Amino acid sequence: MFTPQPIGFVSSPFKNTGEIPKGLGAQHKEEGALRVLPEFEMGLTDIEGFSHLIVLWEFDRAENFALLGTPPSDNRPHGVFATRSPRRPNPIGLTVVELLRREGCALHVRGLDMLDGTPILDIKPYLSSIPAEELRRGWLAEAEARHKGRATLGAGEK
Amino acid sequence: MFTPQPIGFVSSPFKNTGEIPKGLGAQHKEEGALRVLPEFEMGLTDIEGFSHLIVLWEFDRAENFALLGTPPSDNRPHGVFATRSPRRPNPIGLTVVELLRREGCALHVRGLDMLDGTPILDIKPYLSSIPAEELRRGWLAEAEARHKGRATLGAGEK
Repeated sequence: MFTPQPIGFVSSPFKNTGEIPKGLGAQHKEEGALRVLPEFEMGLTDIEGFSHLIVLWEFDRAENFALLGTPPSDNRPHGVFATRSPRRPNPIGLTVVELLRREGCALHVRGLDMLDGTPILDIKPYLSSIPAEELRRGWLAEAEARHKGRATLGAGEK
Repeated sequence: MFTPQPIGFVSSPFKNTGEIPKGLGAQHKEEGALRVLPEFEMGLTDIEGFSHLIVLWEFDRAENFALLGTPPSDNRPHGVFATRSPRRPNPIGLTVVELLRREGCALHVRGLDMLDGTPILDIKPYLSSIPAEELRRGWLAEAEARHKGRATLGAGEK
């Protein structure tokens, strides 16, 4: 297979994984930059026209992979390919960010959930969405429903 | 960086790149399977609950990368990170597929645009969409508008 190389690095406010919002209802609104290496700058031509980008990056501080794991959004284990766990056979992360502006090699973006210094593998334009009404979200929807049920029960108990 | 390893291979009806629909309005409705290697099967636990999956895979038959290229959907060159070109610094492809059913290590899916035998790097659940009204699609929207303009002009000329 190919040998991965960083095309750039993430400038993020997050220095430790504990600072990154996780679990049900976590929002990623943090701003930062995708700093592309100068030798790849020409590859950014015309990227300004896109509102959203898909960023592929390396979980460079993740441990060995685990095929089963309990995500922060649930108290039950699920297969790694049914979660966004960092502990993947190929430690590739995916984040959709909103492109705020470009300054040369730097793409200023909103929606980061990576650590500062994370190596970037690829940037792709976000072209289309699956309509929300066509999505089924398996265990995550079930965990959300249980969470809401507990919240409602809690409110009723008061 | 990490050393990529295939977690499985794609069974696709496409044997040559020329068979894959490309360009404006191309639809990917082809069915096939993601055949995960048996040693990774436990990682598929609970994946059946998701209607759509994100597949990361290797452009294993792509040539060296090119920072600028003219995509099949336009007659103007754009930066590689503003396109889905196969000729990327890290030759990683991304496809969103609809999960039809699972049979052990095989995920039967709709929406393939990879060649038969393509190595799979990762599978992630598709969790949420950017609403269509929030998307800007830069050069692609412009190319579509020019295409429609020509089509309308053509109709008027008849």
